[in-house]
Amino acid sequence: MNIDGKAWRTIWLEEGGRSVGVIDQTQLPHRFTTRSLATLEQAAEAITTMVVRGAPLIGVTGAYGLMLALQADPSDAALEAAFSRLNATRPTAINLRWALERVRRLVSALPPAERAEAAKAEAAAIADEDVAMCEAIGDHGLAIFRELAAARPADRQAEPLNVLTHCNAGWLATVDWGTALAPIYKAHRAGIPIHVWVDETRPRNQGASLTAFELGREGVPHTVIVDNAGGHLMQHGQVDAVIVGTDRTTRSGDVCNKIGTYLKALAAHDNGVPFYVALPASTIDWTIADGVAEIPIEARSAAEVTEIQGRDPAGALGSVQLTPDGSSGFNPAFDVTPARLVTALITERGVAPASEAGLQGLYAKG
Amino acid sequence: MNIDGKAWRTIWLEEGGRSVGVIDQTQLPHRFTTRSLATLEQAAEAITTMVVRGAPLIGVTGAYGLMLALQADPSDAALEAAFSRLNATRPTAINLRWALERVRRLVSALPPAERAEAAKAEAAAIADEDVAMCEAIGDHGLAIFRELAAARPADRQAEPLNVLTHCNAGWLATVDWGTALAPIYKAHRAGIPIHVWVDETRPRNQGASLTAFELGREGVPHTVIVDNAGGHLMQHGQVDAVIVGTDRTTRSGDVCNKIGTYLKALAAHDNGVPFYVALPASTIDWTIADGVAEIPIEARSAAEVTEIQGRDPAGALGSVQLTPDGSSGFNPAFDVTPARLVTALITERGVAPASEAGLQGLYAKG
Repeated sequence: MNIDGKAWRTIWLEEGGRSVGVIDQTQLPHRFTTRSLATLEQAAEAITTMVVRGAPLIGVTGAYGLMLALQADPSDAALEAAFSRLNATRPTAINLRWALERVRRLVSALPPAERAEAAKAEAAAIADEDVAMCEAIGDHGLAIFRELAAARPADRQAEPLNVLTHCNAGWLATVDWGTALAPIYKAHRAGIPIHVWVDETRPRNQGASLTAFELGREGVPHTVIVDNAGGHLMQHGQVDAVIVGTDRTTRSGDVCNKIGTYLKALAAHDNGVPFYVALPASTIDWTIADGVAEIPIEARSAAEVTEIQGRDPAGALGSVQLTPDGSSGFNPAFDVTPARLVTALITERGVAPASEAGLQGLYAKG
Repeated sequence: MNIDGKAWRTIWLEEGGRSVGVIDQTQLPHRFTTRSLATLEQAAEAITTMVVRGAPLIGVTGAYGLMLALQADPSDAALEAAFSRLNATRPTAINLRWALERVRRLVSALPPAERAEAAKAEAAAIADEDVAMCEAIGDHGLAIFRELAAARPADRQAEPLNVLTHCNAGWLATVDWGTALAPIYKAHRAGIPIHVWVDETRPRNQGASLTAFELGREGVPHTVIVDNAGGHLMQHGQVDAVIVGTDRTTRSGDVCNKIGTYLKALAAHDNGVPFYVALPASTIDWTIADGVAEIPIEARSAAEVTEIQGRDPAGALGSVQLTPDGSSGFNPAFDVTPARLVTALITERGVAPASEAGLQGLYAKG
């Protein structure tokens, strides 16, 4: 996507092919800087320190990390050590392990002298495939937004289509386009007037920081709201659709996404506002049927509730404490939105009802 | 209520009767300090600078402000000037105007020499009546909490009753007890094990600051959560009841309260969790039937969304910017929860269904 008119991805091969560039996401939205990763260790640290974030981007960073390791030492032993080092940065990240295994499988069958080049090509392929998948989600979502925009009464046709989103499922979490934001970018570029209500998304404020940054730099009209405001806006006809991403989707269409998603889905349902979830097939967990009962929800640090980070008056990143000393916090990171509240799932293969039949229709073999 | 074992009200007549003490709420929850108001001007400034806040407390502060003015000059002209000065601090605050008119009506019929003493007695009466009203709400709510605690299955009897609240409808907004928190204090003092989930209540974080401060100093177990978390907790049986206050209640039982209340009511309804609203009769607007359609919702400064205040690492009050430069915010301050989502209204006269018949049953004359 664009940053002030120039096209960017979140990760790229640098000149000469012996280092990889990434956007330092720990400094966003207040400072836009990039980092050059030239060694296995730098790639691993970029993942652990959250310089890069989002499952697809972490996977591609891991794949390029193997390339960097093999450029220094293409032996079997070095390959295994690099695999272990990178995989340990996020042991529970399915996408990272999948990307690392894909590159290892390919290069371990090759003579050492050919491994680094092969890893480079495979990492690039993984990145390009992710971009294509996100763009396909964008195209399928665009068709929905076109219909929604056209279906509005004549006296509202001059107004932008108002779309609400929660958290950040944008291009910064992927390689390009993003998932939930891909249809928004497609609509904006297609000339459909669109305006985005950006939930700030406490406690980590990915909406107020990353989503607002992405939309602003691409030039998409948007307004940041507190997470409490969406229901009121829907009651007053100020939201035409909600679109969010998902970390895990059950085979029945339940959606596990950032905490607070469920509340927006309830409000959308209560006000007849369509609620869409954008996802690549990799988020579908075919082993789970009942998301509320079966998906374990991680509790993160209470400090994310009791303190908050931002830009202090001097322009530096700083934090302030919100609660009185002695009051503790509880911080569940995700919640589950039951399929009954989801209007449709938007995937790289097309749009489906949030149900087992819907997902089977898109993904069943044969 | 108690602050670390000592009983406080939010406003009191000081020794000698020629000044009034208040808690400086702008410094909470990080610093507990009091201020002495000895002149009309100091009383007026305490209101405009939000040293005191909450409709009932502002009303009592205004009444004492008239006393202070009359102690300096009991003439008709001084009385009128003081009335105008105080009423102008919050021209839309019904409760303030009501308290000022009540004192003016009384003292203007008296000889100037008797006015200051009469104003003192009337201000004290207004304060005491507010305390009695809040305590009555607490007693009616206590009866509900007793029933809820007893109705839980045997294997949950050892756990505390988990009550969720939004914003601050506690004693700091009134003279003592508060409204939504009054039943919680009553239950805690009655020995019913109770634990409170405190919504932080963005954008102004009255929950994370004031409600957490109140409960902590009284010794009531509580945990601060982001506003996004309540739905997830309800899905998992971790909330036995929700109780909130209201700024305005329609005759049909719709409730206008801090932004985000509606989302919690939806989640409570979806999960079979009872949702209570505590209110004194003064919040009922008998002229309005449809709250969503008829109650105008004030939009406050966007800076409350884009910036946040807290205690910086040096221990001072400070603020940080949350959003990127160029992203603006929208900040509706309240939302309306339709009566269909409200289990019951808890008033100083008793408990009623959230409906015109319910309110008429409590308040109809004759």
